[in-house]
Amino acid sequence: MKSPLAPLPLTDLPVIDGVRYSAVEAGVRYKNRKDVALIEYAPGSVMAGVFTKSSTRSAPVLHCQSILGDEGANGIAIIVNSGNSNAFTGSRGVAAMEMVLAALGAAIGLPKTAIHMASTGVIGEVLPHEPIVKVVPALIAGLDAKAGLATAEAIMTTDTFAKGASAVVDLDGTRVSIAGFAKGSGMIAPDMATMLGFVASDVKIAQPLLQAALLASTEASFNAITVDSDTSTSDSVYLGATGRADMAPINDANDPRLPIFQAALDGVMRDLAHQIVKDGEGATKFITVAVTGAADDADARKVAMATANSPLVKTAVAGEDPNWGRLVMAVGKSGAKADRDLLTIRIGDTLVAQNGAVVPDYIEAPVAAYMKGDDIHFGIDLGLGSGAFTAWTCDFTKRYIEINADYRS
Amino acid sequence: MKSPLAPLPLTDLPVIDGVRYSAVEAGVRYKNRKDVALIEYAPGSVMAGVFTKSSTRSAPVLHCQSILGDEGANGIAIIVNSGNSNAFTGSRGVAAMEMVLAALGAAIGLPKTAIHMASTGVIGEVLPHEPIVKVVPALIAGLDAKAGLATAEAIMTTDTFAKGASAVVDLDGTRVSIAGFAKGSGMIAPDMATMLGFVASDVKIAQPLLQAALLASTEASFNAITVDSDTSTSDSVYLGATGRADMAPINDANDPRLPIFQAALDGVMRDLAHQIVKDGEGATKFITVAVTGAADDADARKVAMATANSPLVKTAVAGEDPNWGRLVMAVGKSGAKADRDLLTIRIGDTLVAQNGAVVPDYIEAPVAAYMKGDDIHFGIDLGLGSGAFTAWTCDFTKRYIEINADYRS
Repeated sequence: MKSPLAPLPLTDLPVIDGVRYSAVEAGVRYKNRKDVALIEYAPGSVMAGVFTKSSTRSAPVLHCQSILGDEGANGIAIIVNSGNSNAFTGSRGVAAMEMVLAALGAAIGLPKTAIHMASTGVIGEVLPHEPIVKVVPALIAGLDAKAGLATAEAIMTTDTFAKGASAVVDLDGTRVSIAGFAKGSGMIAPDMATMLGFVASDVKIAQPLLQAALLASTEASFNAITVDSDTSTSDSVYLGATGRADMAPINDANDPRLPIFQAALDGVMRDLAHQIVKDGEGATKFITVAVTGAADDADARKVAMATANSPLVKTAVAGEDPNWGRLVMAVGKSGAKADRDLLTIRIGDTLVAQNGAVVPDYIEAPVAAYMKGDDIHFGIDLGLGSGAFTAWTCDFTKRYIEINADYRS
Repeated sequence: MKSPLAPLPLTDLPVIDGVRYSAVEAGVRYKNRKDVALIEYAPGSVMAGVFTKSSTRSAPVLHCQSILGDEGANGIAIIVNSGNSNAFTGSRGVAAMEMVLAALGAAIGLPKTAIHMASTGVIGEVLPHEPIVKVVPALIAGLDAKAGLATAEAIMTTDTFAKGASAVVDLDGTRVSIAGFAKGSGMIAPDMATMLGFVASDVKIAQPLLQAALLASTEASFNAITVDSDTSTSDSVYLGATGRADMAPINDANDPRLPIFQAALDGVMRDLAHQIVKDGEGATKFITVAVTGAADDADARKVAMATANSPLVKTAVAGEDPNWGRLVMAVGKSGAKADRDLLTIRIGDTLVAQNGAVVPDYIEAPVAAYMKGDDIHFGIDLGLGSGAFTAWTCDFTKRYIEINADYRS
């Protein structure tokens, strides 16, 4: 059943010069669906990556972190599988990954230090490498610059719709493209412990600047969403740049083209992150928590995430209840510096509470009507400083419990 | 509907010499139920208190924190109401509280600095003081040393059973009693944002030592439980000591009687805390998360609470699924120092994972059978040091969502 919050179906993803995609059925865990994908970057590309901070992260994540930086002289490959995350699988899990890297490396002509791997699925079972090794020739044969959309569909697991976004930006007269796709249905889907994002651009840029751009974008996109507060062992977001655009390279952090590229990248990343929330397990409403007036941005983030993660706030939204007392509770528990008597709370455009109490002429009826919509905005101003952060989440429904308790894939 | 985890009904609470209780119907929010209670301590009593750390805590909590210490020379009163927490109600909320304190003080002969107030219920509505002021004479007339159990029942809100516990301990030949009761059904019940605990003893002890004993006990009881990870604006636990036991006072932290009293207090507090979890909203299973081998106790607490708060762990238990991969995930996200390859995980008595992988001969069937019980024990050893902490929680069911989303009181 497609999420009621799903956007219009994705019909196209722009081609990025120097990037090709492929996806096939390998039967890693499920049958009759594409479950292994390959993304190939041309020689001279650079790759940035942001990974889960989990201390129990998977073998593939550890490998990718170790090779990131200058792996792209002869090209880069990213192999993706669903059905098995190869997390918490010890030395046998590492050996299984090495078999895949070796087979792909031999076939595509790259050392394993130029091959990233993203595995998503069950934790604790060693990745079966044979079915993946077996489809390597088919994966390579299928590589196609136009197959981005098909690959976005192939990496879906419990996702109810394919998630993609793109942008075209003018950098001093050069047209530069950004195209990305992601998977995730909850920060953790049932036994499908991961959120993955793959973004590509033809921008010409030094790797450290690309990495910094990805980090900045991730903070305000994938690191600003939550479905159930749980952190997977495999979350990974990649941003590759082929440098095929006809431009002088961006090698300096003060390059005036960098903020333009950053803004476009931010838009693509935020769009992908919102799509993940909109496909959150059991979600029926999209929630924005905009915090302002905090002592600093870090405190604003604490309040925004405490609110977005609160089961009581999220169940109140599911129940269409303008229960602003639960927002006060979430501010209180966040650990951020807050003064009850300086707090201002808005639901939609309505000022609900100010100066430590409900506004004198508060009428609940219009706010209750607003809560019946599927796009809910909470504004929380702490009245202390200029720190700000916006987080996004979905409501918390019985369907979430059903997906995670009643079913086991 | 009474929780399926409810213990046998409470039939008695021992009398504590110097403490009297009373409860009446005042109609603060609900009709036809007792909703205001009074606890009176004899002159010479000392009071300890532990309160919510929320930065949006209620006016009554702020008042109680400010008077705690040497308020007991002429006796102490604690007035408790349900239906309204008087939190986030600004200066009008403070004024309402002052009216209650003044009326009760005049009638019972105590200054407001000797009167504590515990309010539980809706956030954001000014406490209606008139109905409470009106019942003050009836409250005082009804004071009875044997009314502890009746008071435990009167402070119930969404609780499905009354929660009480007691202990008798021999301190150098003197029989000292401890009796307490608590309310709470989830750290936050719907619109009933609070967990309250009232424990009394006839022990003779200096207030700072009593306070230290309560703090230590709270860390391993009320601060080691979670139902939904949310923190109320009103949580309060009181421990009063009348000094009526025939004993030399405990005035020294090295007094050998102190650890004996502490152990008995710990038992009473842990018992009350477990009862709150067993009455958790929608709970069908009681979960113990015992963490050992952490770098220090603080890290062990992080892992235990991250696990006990994880929606995915709690829904897996609801679904009777021995999904140990979600325990690995919870360790990973906790922020505690952890080495994947030193981690040991037990479900009940069964060793499930060790050395960074599932045990070679793992058979799921007996563990799946164990998960069908209603008392689930997870053992997590980090293999790093001697830090330990045990947390308790309940499973996460559709009924929780129903209570918090579908109904509004």
